[in-house]
Amino acid sequence: MSLLAVGTVAFDALETPFGKTDKIIGGSATYISLSASYFTKKVNLVAVVGDDFRKEDINMMEKHGINTKGLQIKQGQKSFFWAGRYHNDMNTRDTLVTELNVLADFDPIIPEEYQNCEYLMLGNLTPSVQKTVIERLRNRPKLIMMDTMNFWMNVALPELLDVLKMVDVLSINDEEARQLSGEYSIRKAAKKILTLGPRFLIIKKGEHGAYLFHQNSVFFAPALPLEEVCDPTGARDTLAGGCIGSLARTRVLSFENMKRGIIYGSAMASFCVEKFGTERIVHLSKDELESRVQEFVDLVQFEIAMG
Amino acid sequence: MSLLAVGTVAFDALETPFGKTDKIIGGSATYISLSASYFTKKVNLVAVVGDDFRKEDINMMEKHGINTKGLQIKQGQKSFFWAGRYHNDMNTRDTLVTELNVLADFDPIIPEEYQNCEYLMLGNLTPSVQKTVIERLRNRPKLIMMDTMNFWMNVALPELLDVLKMVDVLSINDEEARQLSGEYSIRKAAKKILTLGPRFLIIKKGEHGAYLFHQNSVFFAPALPLEEVCDPTGARDTLAGGCIGSLARTRVLSFENMKRGIIYGSAMASFCVEKFGTERIVHLSKDELESRVQEFVDLVQFEIAMG
Repeated sequence: MSLLAVGTVAFDALETPFGKTDKIIGGSATYISLSASYFTKKVNLVAVVGDDFRKEDINMMEKHGINTKGLQIKQGQKSFFWAGRYHNDMNTRDTLVTELNVLADFDPIIPEEYQNCEYLMLGNLTPSVQKTVIERLRNRPKLIMMDTMNFWMNVALPELLDVLKMVDVLSINDEEARQLSGEYSIRKAAKKILTLGPRFLIIKKGEHGAYLFHQNSVFFAPALPLEEVCDPTGARDTLAGGCIGSLARTRVLSFENMKRGIIYGSAMASFCVEKFGTERIVHLSKDELESRVQEFVDLVQFEIAMG
Repeated sequence: MSLLAVGTVAFDALETPFGKTDKIIGGSATYISLSASYFTKKVNLVAVVGDDFRKEDINMMEKHGINTKGLQIKQGQKSFFWAGRYHNDMNTRDTLVTELNVLADFDPIIPEEYQNCEYLMLGNLTPSVQKTVIERLRNRPKLIMMDTMNFWMNVALPELLDVLKMVDVLSINDEEARQLSGEYSIRKAAKKILTLGPRFLIIKKGEHGAYLFHQNSVFFAPALPLEEVCDPTGARDTLAGGCIGSLARTRVLSFENMKRGIIYGSAMASFCVEKFGTERIVHLSKDELESRVQEFVDLVQFEIAMG
């Protein structure tokens, strides 16, 4: 069923050990909706850009079946812009430029035709904006997944805790899980965070894979060792997008199906990092995706006869 | 069939965020043979200690069925001693003391009854000593696994490359794989290292699990997220010992069986880190081990119906 993706649509300028880009399309909602579009054809976007945003980038999203009616275009204003440089290990990066521009007063307006969306993915945004989105939906979605980051834990923790109570799935990385819980052990951190609202917790470890925690169970989705990692930008949103996209297609909210969702999301993320920005996930064939998912299956498959 | 474990038997003094120890039993061959003893009852030890080594530690090993005939006790000399302090992340550590003592001129003498061992595990030692062990065995074992470390890549690379040609399985960590191959990508590093001699390559990533590479295939054994990690000392040797111990029991050297070996080794290593030194792996019940292995099975189990 239909999915609503809310987050940023923006310009990024990226520099990694493998090269650099001019201003290219980026933003959490971009990666989320592109990734989800490989699993469901009903992706609805809510975001804001300035009048400097390129028509061809919007066309590209529409070609992926993404409904851009909820993409506000602010005349006389500029799009959110982020420039960053990744270090050799690709796990750490320096922010060179952050220009909030249109994002500074983003008011997430939900088009009428988006009401009744059953799956909601809240990309990383001010917690109060995430909350507003939930409040503006007349019916609570079947599943609300959200992403956030350490920055909001530092500057808006009460608001963040407030939204957390309203969501089903939280997706953060290991450092953020430690900060949010005050526990160093990921296992203990997960246990605490699962008391804050979400029923499912995804803890991403970048090149080291991702955990899914639910009640007393834990699942681990490995990261595929790739020959080349060109640019990690967008990987976490691509993972989340693939995950919720596959859930929206299959409509089953069990732990077993969440596991599959994380594997699909991880497969999408593994493509994402192979080239700069969205370049690799803009043109993926069904065969490429299926054979990549099969690589994940093979990567962890073993048989143990106990006793 | 019978397994020969060669390496260090030593004293360690450990300091972690969870406490510190006096001089306790440590050393690569200690962890390897203890871990292997849970899978095969024919573990033979070759190592050297001084006359300061404690009889009760030797008794403990013998109670595990480890044959200590090859443990040389040098009168008037002291055992190898290492003291270290782990940082908060447990991934980095400072060496506080290294006293080679008896290890400085270790001559690995193979007792006659150890000849015809079919499985050989070479713990981290000077590459020339590792080579001597292989040369002193009249019949080449069915399987030779070795561990090494970055130190030998810095000071004895030609000798290390020489031994590598003689072994079946190399077990190193990710940073060592990068150093040995000159490749940052673990996938590319593995491809290069598999041209240097070993048919199988285990790349350990500590708390992030371990890869097994063989020909064009790759397998990933996850690390279990633990509530408490008290002391990582010995984890890599415990993993290797469990792996080769299970191979010695099952006697099948296929990729499939190597995968199982890594899972058994990872399960043993997950116990090892829960307490200081060998404390946790000295008294494990069959039930504890089986239920831990089952946790690894559950951790990565998912079903994908493609199409």
